[in-house]
Amino acid sequence: MNTISETPLFLRALNGEKVDRTPVWIMRQAGRYLPDFITLKNKYDFFTRCQTPELVTEITLMPIKQIGLDAAIIFSDILVIPQAMGVNVEMKNNFGPYIEFPIKNESDIHKLNISNVEEKLNYVFEAVKMTKKELQYNIPLIGFAGSPWTILCYMVQGSGSKTFDIAKSFCFKNPELAHKLLNKITSITIDYLKMKINAGVDAVQIFDSWGGVLSHTDYNVFSYPYIKQINDALKILRPIIIYPKGCWHAINSFSKIGASGLGIDWTCSARNARYLSGNNITLQGNMDPSRLFSPKNELIKLTKEMLNEFGKEKYIANLGHGILPNTPVDNVKVFVDTIKNFS
Amino acid sequence: MNTISETPLFLRALNGEKVDRTPVWIMRQAGRYLPDFITLKNKYDFFTRCQTPELVTEITLMPIKQIGLDAAIIFSDILVIPQAMGVNVEMKNNFGPYIEFPIKNESDIHKLNISNVEEKLNYVFEAVKMTKKELQYNIPLIGFAGSPWTILCYMVQGSGSKTFDIAKSFCFKNPELAHKLLNKITSITIDYLKMKINAGVDAVQIFDSWGGVLSHTDYNVFSYPYIKQINDALKILRPIIIYPKGCWHAINSFSKIGASGLGIDWTCSARNARYLSGNNITLQGNMDPSRLFSPKNELIKLTKEMLNEFGKEKYIANLGHGILPNTPVDNVKVFVDTIKNFS
Repeated sequence: MNTISETPLFLRALNGEKVDRTPVWIMRQAGRYLPDFITLKNKYDFFTRCQTPELVTEITLMPIKQIGLDAAIIFSDILVIPQAMGVNVEMKNNFGPYIEFPIKNESDIHKLNISNVEEKLNYVFEAVKMTKKELQYNIPLIGFAGSPWTILCYMVQGSGSKTFDIAKSFCFKNPELAHKLLNKITSITIDYLKMKINAGVDAVQIFDSWGGVLSHTDYNVFSYPYIKQINDALKILRPIIIYPKGCWHAINSFSKIGASGLGIDWTCSARNARYLSGNNITLQGNMDPSRLFSPKNELIKLTKEMLNEFGKEKYIANLGHGILPNTPVDNVKVFVDTIKNFS
Repeated sequence: MNTISETPLFLRALNGEKVDRTPVWIMRQAGRYLPDFITLKNKYDFFTRCQTPELVTEITLMPIKQIGLDAAIIFSDILVIPQAMGVNVEMKNNFGPYIEFPIKNESDIHKLNISNVEEKLNYVFEAVKMTKKELQYNIPLIGFAGSPWTILCYMVQGSGSKTFDIAKSFCFKNPELAHKLLNKITSITIDYLKMKINAGVDAVQIFDSWGGVLSHTDYNVFSYPYIKQINDALKILRPIIIYPKGCWHAINSFSKIGASGLGIDWTCSARNARYLSGNNITLQGNMDPSRLFSPKNELIKLTKEMLNEFGKEKYIANLGHGILPNTPVDNVKVFVDTIKNFS
């Protein structure tokens, strides 16, 4: 019998309910630092791993079994969206994503096909269903997507970048085209996330990994409104977590649109984040992923400081960005155990 | 005769004095986007350009003559400091700086030689003297250095990076070694900047380009104290501008240490920057360099908004980071002329 008291910890915290201890999960927990994941990585290429439900399930469950986190996040990539739109995305070793023919003009945008998501991304929905069957009831499954701005960054720049100057120049020279592209991405993302929810995810996180390259003014033009559209379309279906990396200036706006959680990076203190969000929303974060390379005693001290600064109410412990490759597994366990044993 | 009224506009604004119009210069103005610079770039390699006083003078004066800015900045690179310490720095085309043997341990740090700066970087001081002779009296010359943290980032990481995770992990695993290295860099940087001042620079800017990868707490351990040391040693000699990119959390502290100017990037609004600095210090910035790709009318509108938001007092107009390669020269002129004609 599912009663209120049985609602999983992670969802209770996301819902602003009182919890006995702080729940914890880790961005990019399904991969990169786990030896068993690296074995699979050497055996199957990136898209084989994403497109094979059995592999996705195995990878998604790995950190739950080995580290003991309070939520699972489906193993996938934000760039399945441009792929589903007809853009050829390669994942190059030691380089990251690469798009040989990035978006350059109106005709490129016109050609993007946003229909048949159910069919084209069926492998994701199959993987969600399979994973849900394997997961214990008390471990919710998070589905995710990139923010439309972050997806545009890759689609126009053609690869990762420190500044995304090509993507930004494109938007500043052709704002109408940029909005056309952002609208298409938003529309397919909403469809995609609705189907992920139908397939069984318990919460959704929107990754605005590159919002921080925009000014506060441009953020309100090119990123915020599209994230809000997605949030507005989905918030009645599942709790939404918005993760706007480097966008402390947007914390206040995001705290007011009915999302359930807000991801905070390590450049914003808990105190500032609580102040800027008016304590209106559950906050998630914010340990610097590089800090997991600290000696164990130091890591325990810093983790406890983080827990004290955020407080137990409306809080989900996490890193401030994805876990780094080569992070010592023992240190990940120290981080997680410190959170689970803290009171 | 030099009277108070003849003090150049840029220095008056830096000193918090009343000005008739806002002065303007551009980070990285000496290079990258100017066709005449690109001609020289194709003829001479990076270090030949930096090490030949005649070339430095020619490059430094180029934007003054062609764009009409209110301050010159000596053409050089922050990585002359690791070079002077005995580290071999290469500047690779389409890659940026590359260090084959980055700092890994105590013995690497022990080997770094911080003496004989006067001799080793003599080419910089000669270039400063030569440039000063050519510059009109009303155009001050800015000298610069990287912050110790930013220099450490390159020395340990071995190249540019989005996250500088190797540099950060090194510091978090070996804080004592990190402080040893930071102290050495600070010491040679102070010597270097004193000699630049002796050679004739009118103001000094410290570039903390990678301070933003640190948490607010770690910034106060690994970056802020070393910039403060440099500022404390030099502020009685010349006005100091501190440019801590991405470190809005440090604006308040930096506004209180007797520096003259504080560089603001485009993720922090003028209003927030004035609030955080208590209007204690001249602010410099903060147009997004990508915004110089906007259509002219849009650029004029945004430039006027920037001027209105910062106000005329205690303000130097600039970009929020270095100008990008391929920026249209006409747009740079539109940006600068809009500032010079604004009242």
